[in-house]
Formats: sequence, C-alpha cells, structure tokens
Amino acid sequence: MGKEFELIRRITEKFSLNSFVHVGPGDDAAVLDIEGTSIAIATDMMVENVHFKTNWLTPIELGQRIVAQNFADIVAMSATPIAITACVSAPSNTEPTWFEALAVGMQAECDLVGASVVGGDLSTSKEITISVTALGLLSNSPVVRSGAGPDQVVALAGTLGYSAAGLACLQFGHSAPKKFVENFRVPKPPYHAGMASGTSATAMIDISDGLISDALHIASQSQVEIHLDAAAIAPEPELESLASALSQEALSWILNGGEEHSLLATFEAGRSLPEGFRPIGHTRAGTPGVYMGGILQEPNGFTHF
Amino acid sequence: MGKEFELIRRITEKFSLNSFVHVGPGDDAAVLDIEGTSIAIATDMMVENVHFKTNWLTPIELGQRIVAQNFADIVAMSATPIAITACVSAPSNTEPTWFEALAVGMQAECDLVGASVVGGDLSTSKEITISVTALGLLSNSPVVRSGAGPDQVVALAGTLGYSAAGLACLQFGHSAPKKFVENFRVPKPPYHAGMASGTSATAMIDISDGLISDALHIASQSQVEIHLDAAAIAPEPELESLASALSQEALSWILNGGEEHSLLATFEAGRSLPEGFRPIGHTRAGTPGVYMGGILQEPNGFTHF
Repeated sequence: MGKEFELIRRITEKFSLNSFVHVGPGDDAAVLDIEGTSIAIATDMMVENVHFKTNWLTPIELGQRIVAQNFADIVAMSATPIAITACVSAPSNTEPTWFEALAVGMQAECDLVGASVVGGDLSTSKEITISVTALGLLSNSPVVRSGAGPDQVVALAGTLGYSAAGLACLQFGHSAPKKFVENFRVPKPPYHAGMASGTSATAMIDISDGLISDALHIASQSQVEIHLDAAAIAPEPELESLASALSQEALSWILNGGEEHSLLATFEAGRSLPEGFRPIGHTRAGTPGVYMGGILQEPNGFTHF
Repeated sequence: MGKEFELIRRITEKFSLNSFVHVGPGDDAAVLDIEGTSIAIATDMMVENVHFKTNWLTPIELGQRIVAQNFADIVAMSATPIAITACVSAPSNTEPTWFEALAVGMQAECDLVGASVVGGDLSTSKEITISVTALGLLSNSPVVRSGAGPDQVVALAGTLGYSAAGLACLQFGHSAPKKFVENFRVPKPPYHAGMASGTSATAMIDISDGLISDALHIASQSQVEIHLDAAAIAPEPELESLASALSQEALSWILNGGEEHSLLATFEAGRSLPEGFRPIGHTRAGTPGVYMGGILQEPNGFTHF
C-alpha cells in the first residue's frame, strides 16, 4: 500500500496548480472554482483481469459499476454528479451490442442522480479498459478529508464488507448470496447521504481501499486519532456464516474490503446526522492513526504497484 | 470508417442529456452550461501497440502527446484549456521513473496554455493505456461543427501531413527527418489560433482523423459543400521527397493523415482571419461533401472497429 501511495506522491509532485484549483490531487475529487462556479472532478478506471473478469459482470453491470465508482468520489465531496465522459478500449472483435449494453449501464447509473454521458473515446486493445471522468456541482464548500477535528462523531453511510464478500464468492465460483455478489458487481454508493451532508460533515471519504485504509486518510490529513466502535461495525450474521463457509474472515472484509463505496464522514458531536449516516466511532486529539478496542489498526487493502 | 461512426451513433443513442448540456456528444468537445459558466469537456485515449509503440516515444513525449490531443479538441470549440485528469495503466514492473516522466510531459503540455493536472487513477495492465479528460473555459459561444454557411472561407491553422509522414518514418525504422517524426511524437496544435477564433469562426474542427474525413464532418453537420484549393494544400518539397523515398504518396498524407491536430475552420467571406489561419478553400450551398478540383473526395482515415 505504502509503495503505491509513494508512487502517487512522486507523480503529483510534478504538477503545478493554477488559480482555478481549489482542491488539488489527494482528495476523493479535485475541486475547481471557475468564475464563481464550484466543480468537483474525479476519475477512475477499470481494467479486465485486474478489477474484474468478463464472466463476473454483464456489460450493463460494468457500465453501472464504473460510473458508481466515480460518482462515489463526487458525492464524497458533497457534490451532485452532473456529467461523465468515458474512454473504452476492447478487443477488435467485440460486438456492437456489448458497447450498447455498456452504454445502457452507464446511463442507468447516471439516471440515479440526473447526470449525463456527454462524451467519450473508443479504441481497440487486448484487454478491456474503461476510464470514466465525472463532474459534480457544489452548492457549498467541498467536504475534504482534512476537515475533521478532535472529539467529533465518525459516521458511516452504506454497507461494509459486502463487496469483498461478493468478490470472494465469485473467486470461489459462486454467484450467491446475491446480496453480496450484486454489491460487488454494482456498488450502491449512498449518493443522497453524501449530497445531503455538505453543510454538516467536517470531513468525508469514499471507502474504496477499505475502511481502515480510508479512515487513515482522514486521520492523517486531519491530524486526529480515529477510534472505531467494534460493536457498531461487527459483521452481520449472514456475512459471518458466509465467511466461515469460505474459510475467510468476515472482520477482514469489514475492515479491509475495498470497492465498497460507502461513505465515511465526521460530524461535530451532538449534531444530528444526515439521513443514511449512523455513528461508528469518534475522533480524538493525538497522533494520526485508526484504532479499534484501543489497538492501532494497520491498513491491508489492495495495491497495484 | 463508416462502421466506427455507426457504432458511436448506436452508443450515443443510449444517452439522454440533462439541462446542463449545451453541446452533447458528436462535436470535438461537449459543452456544459453550469450556473452561467460555460465549460468544454473532451476525452481521448492512447493504447500501446494501437496508437504507439514504446520504442517510438519517450514517456515525456507520451505525456505531452495525450494532453495535446485533448487540448486540440478543447481549442477546436474556441475554449481555453484549464485542467485535465488522467487514467494510466501499465505493466506492474513499470519503473516509478516512467510514471514521473509521463507526469513531466503532461505538465509541460499543460504549461503551454496554463492548465493543471488535477486528478488521476493508476492501474496495472498488460499494455499501457492512457486516458485523459480535459476541461476548457469558454468566454464566448462554442464554435461547433454545424455552424458553417455557404460561400464562406475554409481556413487551416497548423500543418498537414507531418504526423502521417513521421509515423511512416518510424514504421520504416527511421527517426528522421526530425520535423515530421517530432510532429508525430508530439503534435503541435495551434492552441492560440483556436482560442482566438471564438468570435469569428463559424465552424471549427480538430484534424484528428484526416483532412478529408474531418472536413466532411463540417460539411455534413453544416449541410454545405466544402471545396479545397489543391494549390493551397499541395505538399511541400520536403514532404514530397520523403514520400518518394519511402514509396508513399505525399498527397495521401495531406488528405488522409490522422493525428495532425491542426484546426480546420470556416469564416465569413471578407473577414480577416485570426492569426495562424490561412485560407485553403471555400464552402458552397449544395449536397454535403468535400471536393478538390471539382472531384468528390472519399475519406480514408484510420478506423478502430
């Protein structure tokens, strides 16, 4: 994990930011202030045999999934997704109907928030790659990762461990339980919770690398300790029984499962949480780190490089 | 060519456009009107062994090239590029210095117009793919492909045939003449001519598929004939001698060479052209088509599908 973050640091060091950039690289999305209009922009890609296998998802699901991943980043700034562009490469013998189904999936996910697909590019390639860039509109200051203070409530909107559980099922050749497999195929980011939290959340992040890893981003960038309440994030019985059937650890799915696309946010204590959020811990002054039961947790998510 | 355009048509049919969309898919860039701010957005990808071979370009040149391709689309709407995002996938054994050099190239191209790299995503893959999305700011109505009228001047900013000539050199194992090879490696879109034409050009397009193919886009979308002046686009002697040395046709590079990223635009007759543009033909009322010496020209550019 550290190696990939180090690579990203070395890359972003090369960039210089102009006066339009309000939030640069290093958050869920960048934010541009353009003539008084505040625009969030995020980009996320999927590569065949790295992020998915073609027999795991239909092209419609692929289209939904890549857009959901991007919109999760947009709503994690509390912005409302308005438009996407997509670059798609696929083997030259790919049927037109495959591209059409992918487009239907993209549009279906856009429809959940009223966004549009406004442009794209096609190429051939040996393996499928899909890159999407999403734009969002902000009507308030963006909620960044660095805004949490001490003694605040840590809250979650959405599920934990479902996507990792679904991926494990597929890797073991099962297509059930549907609840988990479908969450892996098409994540269900809590769009409305994110969009509604702009005036109350102090910090927010999309859980894409894993709960611990992403909580650590808030802890590090906000310079606070994050204490997770073990009871509040305990695996539900269905997740436990699936894990033991597959000889896996349900708690590991909860803590380190990636691509869940739930939202983790902080709020001032005593404040009522926006609909969809539930408390799962608190922040404290101290050395940045993520704790559960008083024990420092190490991130253990997926890494590419 | 027709097959790929037909595929794009079938894909874009699936999309529905919201009220932010001022120009949708089908032009060089889409244009969003967001709270009174007019934003152009374009996206373009490069795939190893489809668009380039790694021994043809340094990673710095790759970074410059993919950004130049995108900015050519932005200035073809007469917008000023302000920001990009980039998705990059590469084999897992790729050195960090390769990514750093790619970033340096992207930043270098951004510096030509004052734009910034604001976000990105990394993945592993078997072959390198690079997708960039560029945003531009419009201070006037976008110059679209459909705005040309009859009896207008057809004008060109930039070179013709250089990129195709450079590609041919590389394909034959030569790295000279530098003038052409460097134009293939890093195209030189006439950014300032494009940005300066917003109040005078009636239609404009980035020449990415080839002069005939892209002129035909203006002709079809504007419902005019385009007549090219053969003398005005005749190959220069250096291009002619290179072509005969390689047993190629210089005129074919001029008419059908892709990835040149010059700008083709139309202007009302009698109007002085913005700096960088020179007249190369005229429009006429009639059946959409592109003519040279009175003969209808057929597009013959590259096609993926």
